[in-house]
Amino acid sequence: MDQKIIEKIHEIVGETWVVTDTEKVTVYCEDQTEKAVMPKVCTDCVVAKPSSSEEVSEILKYANKNKIPVIARGGGTSLSGAAVAIMPSIIISTERMNKIIEVDETALTVECEAGVTLLQLVELFSKHESLYFPIHPGDEGAQVGGLVAMNAGGVRAVRYGVMRDQVKEIEVVLPTGEIIHFGGKLIKNNAGLDLKNLIIGSEGILGIVTKATLSLKPKDKYTGSLLVSFNDENDAVKSVTEIFKRGIRPLAVEYMEKSSILRAAKDIGMTWPSKEGKVDLYFIVSERKEDDLYDMYETIVGICEENNAADSFVAESTRDQKNILDIRSHVYPSMHDEMVDAIDAAVPISELVKYVNGIAVIAEKYNVEISTIGHIGDGNMHNSILNKGAVKPSNYDELVDEIFSLIIKCNGALTGEHGIGKVRNSKLKFQFSDVELRLMNDIKKIFDPNGILNPGTAI
Amino acid sequence: MDQKIIEKIHEIVGETWVVTDTEKVTVYCEDQTEKAVMPKVCTDCVVAKPSSSEEVSEILKYANKNKIPVIARGGGTSLSGAAVAIMPSIIISTERMNKIIEVDETALTVECEAGVTLLQLVELFSKHESLYFPIHPGDEGAQVGGLVAMNAGGVRAVRYGVMRDQVKEIEVVLPTGEIIHFGGKLIKNNAGLDLKNLIIGSEGILGIVTKATLSLKPKDKYTGSLLVSFNDENDAVKSVTEIFKRGIRPLAVEYMEKSSILRAAKDIGMTWPSKEGKVDLYFIVSERKEDDLYDMYETIVGICEENNAADSFVAESTRDQKNILDIRSHVYPSMHDEMVDAIDAAVPISELVKYVNGIAVIAEKYNVEISTIGHIGDGNMHNSILNKGAVKPSNYDELVDEIFSLIIKCNGALTGEHGIGKVRNSKLKFQFSDVELRLMNDIKKIFDPNGILNPGTAI
Repeated sequence: MDQKIIEKIHEIVGETWVVTDTEKVTVYCEDQTEKAVMPKVCTDCVVAKPSSSEEVSEILKYANKNKIPVIARGGGTSLSGAAVAIMPSIIISTERMNKIIEVDETALTVECEAGVTLLQLVELFSKHESLYFPIHPGDEGAQVGGLVAMNAGGVRAVRYGVMRDQVKEIEVVLPTGEIIHFGGKLIKNNAGLDLKNLIIGSEGILGIVTKATLSLKPKDKYTGSLLVSFNDENDAVKSVTEIFKRGIRPLAVEYMEKSSILRAAKDIGMTWPSKEGKVDLYFIVSERKEDDLYDMYETIVGICEENNAADSFVAESTRDQKNILDIRSHVYPSMHDEMVDAIDAAVPISELVKYVNGIAVIAEKYNVEISTIGHIGDGNMHNSILNKGAVKPSNYDELVDEIFSLIIKCNGALTGEHGIGKVRNSKLKFQFSDVELRLMNDIKKIFDPNGILNPGTAI
Repeated sequence: MDQKIIEKIHEIVGETWVVTDTEKVTVYCEDQTEKAVMPKVCTDCVVAKPSSSEEVSEILKYANKNKIPVIARGGGTSLSGAAVAIMPSIIISTERMNKIIEVDETALTVECEAGVTLLQLVELFSKHESLYFPIHPGDEGAQVGGLVAMNAGGVRAVRYGVMRDQVKEIEVVLPTGEIIHFGGKLIKNNAGLDLKNLIIGSEGILGIVTKATLSLKPKDKYTGSLLVSFNDENDAVKSVTEIFKRGIRPLAVEYMEKSSILRAAKDIGMTWPSKEGKVDLYFIVSERKEDDLYDMYETIVGICEENNAADSFVAESTRDQKNILDIRSHVYPSMHDEMVDAIDAAVPISELVKYVNGIAVIAEKYNVEISTIGHIGDGNMHNSILNKGAVKPSNYDELVDEIFSLIIKCNGALTGEHGIGKVRNSKLKFQFSDVELRLMNDIKKIFDPNGILNPGTAI
């Protein structure tokens, strides 16, 4: 990295807040993308740790003038290579911009700097009497800026939607240095074109999110969970849609292949509470009133039984719930040594069985194991492609292309929550026409005429 | 209108489906914007009534090549002049594209052509056992294309949000003639930039919506309503936020100045059930279980009483509910002879009292009556500016500018649901910086390089 660039960054953020040591820089150049598919990392980068939007703006003005690539980096928890540096770049780490600015108990919002972690929000609201932040995509090291830029999802989308549905207002620094606010603490907002939603999920290519005001939800007093097993995926899907039609929205409805969940349990020497069936549904329910919780259990089990459930188990005690969640959390670690990549398709729930069956056919054709675990309530399935030593099979590209073709045949999206990043941008043509890609690229040019922001990502 | 243009339109949609007679064309050149503020209408237009997206595409290709302005027109119910013709234009009326294509009981969606009216949806789902379409902005003549293009709102935004929150997928014809689909029957969809939300609320300046797939919601079995009166607006607002914090989301929470509602009642010789207080809150509640409905009444009344409610009235019988709604519906008609314009600001609920008090100060300063009725649950207030004979007061522009300044001081949006249209586009500078306006205008150019779509609207 050019010494002149480093000196300029020193000048803007102060020498203490610049990282140039290769070993330390390397940590900032990678994210949590699987090694087998991670793009080739470039460590010839400088890491800047600004303390304010104004410092971010100064860096961007300088980078834009000199056409230097810039990557905004939050917790580095991306699974699609969105935060990986692939060319000499200035990496802006938002870790110092970690203040929770305001909890507004009237508007039911929390305003955060971009570097606030999910953990900070979880801890803050664990102590709050009545409110919490509903989105939980998994890794609590994720930062608010990244959650917004990647439009994070997670298990609770069934009831509360994804990050896009929680973002009321954002502060964004454009590549040209202007600091702009989009949105407001509003439920209705009908003036002008919707630039806020254009930024959400844009993976850091249009601007750098420096602050966000997010929706809070009221805490339910009573929570519980429920495990139901089925011999046939069709029955599982039918039960879920029947439940939604009755006006019941559990907090989460997870779908687990029995084989994957039993492997995870075995791996840590625990016992999965249900032996029957081929697939399990795991419902997390929460209600304001205790009666409603029991009513919920009864209705859900009733509907599942009408749809040929093989077994059901109400996890009433904290111990039972912890047991299930511990095993569920271990599904990925138990596969990690063989994990090539995890596809995270989203399909309409009506196409889910077709999708799951299609995946089985592809797995057989290519002679690989593909584990399917997913957020059935929102149609977002995670297909882990497994191969010995986590090495790409020789015909991997064809295999993945068949999966992407299948997703589109099922009217789905290439990614439900992980984003396109630098891993899947060559696959966009499966989902989008030339006209759509042209519109997206033209929008990119409007925001970022010199193409400095996160090159090679998203589109 | 040039005879050559008319002949080309004949060729595309068939002679039967073209209107050129001035008197008949005039109907299509105006919308429901108040006469005092309606832009100068140009009736030198031709109305085309295509039967398909392909015909819309043919018209747009021709218009784009020849740089002829085009206005997409749905039910013509806009209150901001969005559908008014202000120059010789081809008006595309979507009235023949009125098929409800599919109700998907698994994905809980309805797919409609753009010309499907809100009335068609209301009638279809009044007969449905368990599902309905939750958005109801008022005029049932509104068409789906217009509802999407204008991001319609209405009273039920408190629980279900606005049109933007219901739109799963749209088919759009670009001004260059390409027919594109944005979105899908998905809860999670994280690939590429969000073009769908860019179209929603864009008021017909980026493309013409020809189809839309919309969310359906489960019907609640039990509904009721509740009227609570307060002497102090602060107490009314505090009650509403307290209710939300407890996890209670009524279907609607309306705010009514007593003076406006009593005038409406008197005008049609009916009796308003509450005499006490200065402002009323009207709650519409709906629940799956009867017990929950009563619990809801009790909790809401309890919270309101803790916040100094002057009076409360549970409208349990259908007759009581109808009485209230009839009077509420008559508020606008009772003011119509004096109505100059209705501002529809949206402000954070925490700023609502400041906003209402600010409006009172402005009304006194300019010596006009400004009636305030609104959707308090979502911060969207309708301020009707009244003047004898519905004539603009001489210093009207200053008066309106003061209101827009007040909205911005309250961190609000210039419009919550009516849109910018051709009535308020000169006011955008109150809400948006030059950079934001530049971005919006550049996006417009990407979609519509020749600027043919609805010129003078939205931005």
